[in-house]
Amino acid sequence: MSRKVWILRLTHRVERDKRVTTHLALVARAFGAQGMYYSGDQDMSLEDKIRGVVERWGGKFSIEYVDNPVQFTRKWILEKGQVVHLTMYGIPLPDVIDDIRRHDKILVIVGSEKVDSIFFDLATYNVSITTQPHSEIAALAVFLDYYHQGAEFKLDFPGAKYKVIPMEKGKKVVKLR
Amino acid sequence: MSRKVWILRLTHRVERDKRVTTHLALVARAFGAQGMYYSGDQDMSLEDKIRGVVERWGGKFSIEYVDNPVQFTRKWILEKGQVVHLTMYGIPLPDVIDDIRRHDKILVIVGSEKVDSIFFDLATYNVSITTQPHSEIAALAVFLDYYHQGAEFKLDFPGAKYKVIPMEKGKKVVKLR
Repeated sequence: MSRKVWILRLTHRVERDKRVTTHLALVARAFGAQGMYYSGDQDMSLEDKIRGVVERWGGKFSIEYVDNPVQFTRKWILEKGQVVHLTMYGIPLPDVIDDIRRHDKILVIVGSEKVDSIFFDLATYNVSITTQPHSEIAALAVFLDYYHQGAEFKLDFPGAKYKVIPMEKGKKVVKLR
Repeated sequence: MSRKVWILRLTHRVERDKRVTTHLALVARAFGAQGMYYSGDQDMSLEDKIRGVVERWGGKFSIEYVDNPVQFTRKWILEKGQVVHLTMYGIPLPDVIDDIRRHDKILVIVGSEKVDSIFFDLATYNVSITTQPHSEIAALAVFLDYYHQGAEFKLDFPGAKYKVIPMEKGKKVVKLR
């Protein structure tokens, strides 16, 4: 995939967010992102879990802690490009996706409960996946599906130990190495 | 929306799953489902939270506990129609979505860690949203987006107290009543 996407997950809290942030990282990987940065509490158990999935299921997805997400975002904008902030207060995805797809390297910011207003200002695009309260995990998945136009269904994960063979009934997993 | 979808969330565990099941219910509502049934632990705090969102943000979404999900699913099939089970082991969504869309009343089963094999057998369709490990929340959102062909972006929620006005920067919420 020539389009490259990284995620920045804001304000991870070890206890409260461990499953939500894990889901976010796994969605990012499965839907073709290159890696995820996260701020808040550094969490080695989260990082180990994601690296374990990459080891078993393949690909090159990275996870990395970021101490200062504002500085990180400013540096990204200067050196790399566009920033998409997913928020229920932003412009509906269908209205901006064609515009966003003109850029082939983006940082997608995914907030926690309260997002500092500076991220609304720094973002090139504040984008809503419906204007209803729901889930940052769902928002990220739908955003990546639109951005990659469904390419997540055809992704290859080199180096995988396991691969699922789709079945109408039951489970089939083959061991590749 | 003339298509009607209900969700069945299997094996909710109060402590471990409270945020994931909450996200599932909110995604179901925001993406146009009629309601969610859940099995496992009955959880009044989960139900109150979802009913509070419906009270503030409108619509008619229901949440209801189901004691015996196998019996419930069997009854659904006899009386109402088709069952879609979301699982990483199933047939890729793009290969079956046109077929599924021929049905305008479906039950979507969303598992927890381990799903009893009977649900693979009972389901009319076992459907994968990528064959990689990720998140049942993401799977549900992408499934509903494909099933409703993006209609979630145009949904109306009658009786809402609050409504978000999409903005390029910042937040705008209007109080309707």
